[in-house]
Amino acid sequence: MSLVVVGSVAYDGVQTPHGQRERMLGGACTYVALAASYFTRVGVVGVVGEDFDPADRRFLEERGIDLAGLEQKPGKTFYWSGVYSEDMNDRVTLRTELNVFGDFQPELPPGYRRQPYLFLGNIQPELQRRVREQMESPRLVGGDTMNYWIESRREALLETLAGWHVLLINDSEARLLSGERNLRRASERIRSLGPRILVIKRGEHGAVLFADEGPFLAPAYPLDTVADPTGAGDCFAGGFFGYLAEQGADLRDGIERRLLRRAVIYGSVMGSFCCERFGVERFRTLTRAEIDARFKEFKELTEF
Amino acid sequence: MSLVVVGSVAYDGVQTPHGQRERMLGGACTYVALAASYFTRVGVVGVVGEDFDPADRRFLEERGIDLAGLEQKPGKTFYWSGVYSEDMNDRVTLRTELNVFGDFQPELPPGYRRQPYLFLGNIQPELQRRVREQMESPRLVGGDTMNYWIESRREALLETLAGWHVLLINDSEARLLSGERNLRRASERIRSLGPRILVIKRGEHGAVLFADEGPFLAPAYPLDTVADPTGAGDCFAGGFFGYLAEQGADLRDGIERRLLRRAVIYGSVMGSFCCERFGVERFRTLTRAEIDARFKEFKELTEF
Repeated sequence: MSLVVVGSVAYDGVQTPHGQRERMLGGACTYVALAASYFTRVGVVGVVGEDFDPADRRFLEERGIDLAGLEQKPGKTFYWSGVYSEDMNDRVTLRTELNVFGDFQPELPPGYRRQPYLFLGNIQPELQRRVREQMESPRLVGGDTMNYWIESRREALLETLAGWHVLLINDSEARLLSGERNLRRASERIRSLGPRILVIKRGEHGAVLFADEGPFLAPAYPLDTVADPTGAGDCFAGGFFGYLAEQGADLRDGIERRLLRRAVIYGSVMGSFCCERFGVERFRTLTRAEIDARFKEFKELTEF
Repeated sequence: MSLVVVGSVAYDGVQTPHGQRERMLGGACTYVALAASYFTRVGVVGVVGEDFDPADRRFLEERGIDLAGLEQKPGKTFYWSGVYSEDMNDRVTLRTELNVFGDFQPELPPGYRRQPYLFLGNIQPELQRRVREQMESPRLVGGDTMNYWIESRREALLETLAGWHVLLINDSEARLLSGERNLRRASERIRSLGPRILVIKRGEHGAVLFADEGPFLAPAYPLDTVADPTGAGDCFAGGFFGYLAEQGADLRDGIERRLLRRAVIYGSVMGSFCCERFGVERFRTLTRAEIDARFKEFKELTEF
């Protein structure tokens, strides 16, 4: 194993213009782990309830994902449901039932503590920090957060971010965290808080990497049809971190510019595949060859 | 001369979060011509009133722009004013006074008819078609249109587009014209109407080129500060067409893929410079060396 992923494992109900699913496997940790599993060995730290389907467990294991850190507790699994707008740029939450995720206290199995890569999904900043502290000497620590924590737990979040190498957030979160509307200025502010590598995800508009070597602009893959954008940002993170882990990237040595940029493209690739089917469906058939073919297509789409 | 540009020459009043101007030189034809003037000799076809400032005429002439087709008529010059939203993604029109532009009947001076390149700014589709018919055998004809004509003059617009090689429009116009929300599918529909080269401008999100050789995704330049986005789309068109004219691009021979892609980047470059100052101000000092430096920067920002 190489990459530890911490966060929510959930069941989701979603409705998009292309269809509806009452209950499908989801959660940030699930998406990140699945996307990263094409590049490196992944171990997850999360919690599910008694209703967690053994078939879902098998699916993750078949992708080579280590579930030693996936606790099963009395009660029900985190459930979220929402409806996407016609253009899928907005969504309205219908239900959020935290269930066993409500008092999630992530504990790393002993074997996880020596792993070189750690990705902290969007949970309370205090919990993220405590997980970070359980790791011995990771080469690369990164994660995600959300508007809710930026607004309600800013101090704790700032303390947490100070210990990260990488932050992956979306543009509205970057603006809220920095107080700057302009993304270039927002990035300077955020990078001064700790994470020297900042990836701002912009959904259908691609992503921007800000690092010591200057910014990098990556487009989103132009999909013919987006079936369901749920999890696309998490799959981006999984592709990004998974590729860096595969390549043995080490921030203590400095990460070469090309590696970081390619990681962003692999992130975009994984986000794009995620959108092609509902939930995690695409990962039941996706192959590494398809991933590398789309990576090449990105080159084709952008070189001049 | 090499490129003929037809469209509005105007005075604009604009207010953005960065300031306000009561009356500044503007109009699509002006912006296209100025941006293109860094690449090729440009002649404009437009109309102004008695109030047109000789200093503005001199400014255009100093950029090498031929004004033989710029008619001066009794009355006042087209005037538009508007206010941009805080994030500058929206604007509200305060006043539109067509004045002498109201019955603009573009007439090409004889020397213009043999020119190889024609850009038709956003005017009534019937007028655009009539100008096109005055040209002898242009190598490349392209232009712009807007929601208003797509909705109110669809038939005339379709007849006009059938004679164009290139259409440059923004994403909402592409969706309205094609009836497709997905840009890839929208592009197929639009390219079947005539223009084999379609550039969809997406403002701060860059541009997408659709051509026989497959799509090309270009980012927008990440500016620290956007002073005034007025005219940025027109400057994109000017950079795009100007570069193709400079390179002697000929659609009758086929245009090589690299040339088209570079034209898109030069379009983005010119649009980005336009936004740095109010109105056409940036073109009072901008040099070709700065343009080429930013082109290189685009390579730097996107290669992986």
